[in-house]
Amino acid sequence: MKVGLIGLGKMGMNLGQNLIDHGHDVVAFDLNAQAVEEMKTYGAQSTTTMQELVQSMETPRIVWIMVPHHVVDSVISEISPIMSKGDIIIEAGNSHYKESIRRHDELKEIGISFMDVGTSGGMEGARNGACYMIGGDPEAWTIVEPIFQDTSVENGYLYAGKAGSGHYLKMVHNGIEYGMMASIGEGFEVLEKSDFEFDYEKVARVWNNGSVIRSWLIELMEHAFSKDSKLEDIKGVMNSSGEGRWTVEEAFDLQTATPVIAMSLLMRYRSQENDTFTGKVVAALRNEFGGHAVEKK
Amino acid sequence: MKVGLIGLGKMGMNLGQNLIDHGHDVVAFDLNAQAVEEMKTYGAQSTTTMQELVQSMETPRIVWIMVPHHVVDSVISEISPIMSKGDIIIEAGNSHYKESIRRHDELKEIGISFMDVGTSGGMEGARNGACYMIGGDPEAWTIVEPIFQDTSVENGYLYAGKAGSGHYLKMVHNGIEYGMMASIGEGFEVLEKSDFEFDYEKVARVWNNGSVIRSWLIELMEHAFSKDSKLEDIKGVMNSSGEGRWTVEEAFDLQTATPVIAMSLLMRYRSQENDTFTGKVVAALRNEFGGHAVEKK
Repeated sequence: MKVGLIGLGKMGMNLGQNLIDHGHDVVAFDLNAQAVEEMKTYGAQSTTTMQELVQSMETPRIVWIMVPHHVVDSVISEISPIMSKGDIIIEAGNSHYKESIRRHDELKEIGISFMDVGTSGGMEGARNGACYMIGGDPEAWTIVEPIFQDTSVENGYLYAGKAGSGHYLKMVHNGIEYGMMASIGEGFEVLEKSDFEFDYEKVARVWNNGSVIRSWLIELMEHAFSKDSKLEDIKGVMNSSGEGRWTVEEAFDLQTATPVIAMSLLMRYRSQENDTFTGKVVAALRNEFGGHAVEKK
Repeated sequence: MKVGLIGLGKMGMNLGQNLIDHGHDVVAFDLNAQAVEEMKTYGAQSTTTMQELVQSMETPRIVWIMVPHHVVDSVISEISPIMSKGDIIIEAGNSHYKESIRRHDELKEIGISFMDVGTSGGMEGARNGACYMIGGDPEAWTIVEPIFQDTSVENGYLYAGKAGSGHYLKMVHNGIEYGMMASIGEGFEVLEKSDFEFDYEKVARVWNNGSVIRSWLIELMEHAFSKDSKLEDIKGVMNSSGEGRWTVEEAFDLQTATPVIAMSLLMRYRSQENDTFTGKVVAALRNEFGGHAVEKK
């Protein structure tokens, strides 16, 4: 199939090669001309404008957008007017599912199908086999399914139904990921504070072979500890890019109790501060009512 | 090697067969004579008393105790007086690491080596390849290592060091397990409350192929949903058998923040109640200060 690929960052560049490996024709565009040139060396057709990309393809065109989520709307508003009825836009970045539903509905009015795709597995997955959660109209799905089949790991794609369902699943996937990662982190924190001397690389390895918590995340920790046995080169600041928060906000909307995922999100925020105003307030109160000493700055 | 196996419950019975598969001689004892008879049919030597078990072996004897944790002390106090200097006791149940340190120290005084072993992987693991975390004296470890190598999955055993370290690792493993399970549960809870119609078996399958959260626990959920697509036959009561709580208590002793694991434990307790006194108190207060309606029993 011919796929127009917009966005040649870490994910798009790897996905493009993955598509070409599987015999698809990639027509590539990115604002960064150097990235387009690199993609060309892998066998893609290069373009210098979105218009050129659209004109290089026949209807029904399949355009795969793999750009940061804050750029998605501007790409769509630039490209959709020059696309045709029956064309399909695949948006495989980390968008909020409500945005995906809105984009789907807006594009439907001009006859363009919109598929929202949550992608997991990182750069390695994009290159050699990703995991896809996909939402959108079933008619468009039957057209694009082969692309997902070819570029995913075995059983690594799911058409989940109506618009938004792909990004919804990805959002919840990431919420679960936050909780799992926090649990693993806290477990190693206890080991580190304990009176024992554990070799964390070996601990991760044994936990990853036959135990109940064996998982890709524990595999990644084995790898991380193999490079830095006590993670001494890493500061314990846990940033986040949105989907854990969206999961918690969604849980609020649904009035659903997700305290473990919520706590893992809140502890990420806590990790971003060296000192807290909460701490100052509590220390001040203990001093006020009990005369307990406060630590001076 | 000859291994005296005490305790032929679900774990012991499977471990006994696993040992025999790997060419070890098993001398078996259990208070339940029927279990001993069953173990005999798999090729073990049966005994009717612990004394007979001890007399059937030569020094240095290796006695593997696989009994519920509240029975461990009574088994040890019955068998240790008839054992000899240089003998080794392996305790592979779910004991608290502080108990294991105490047992190690008490047995050391009479010349018996004590190994504390955390076992993960369930019955299937005990039968075909478990995951072991092992603590105890290094001299005894060199003697018993082949048993663990033979009955674990590849890379599935770790000698972690001094007495208590095996059960310590298992305790923390279970703490992590609590948090991971709660996160997975909450994620599916959001899906269930959402406006989408997801097929949870398929969701678990796609998450298990190429995604960041792929893990044995998600595999188990795929299996569970394949049998009962909405878990309608299961009540959402989360019982626990101690190690999650021990992890949190240990974190308190170490003054270490493990809020995600702690929350997963507290939510297990919450699940065991149909109504809560907390809820009554908060509802009463809202009624007192704001005239908000309370739901009557």
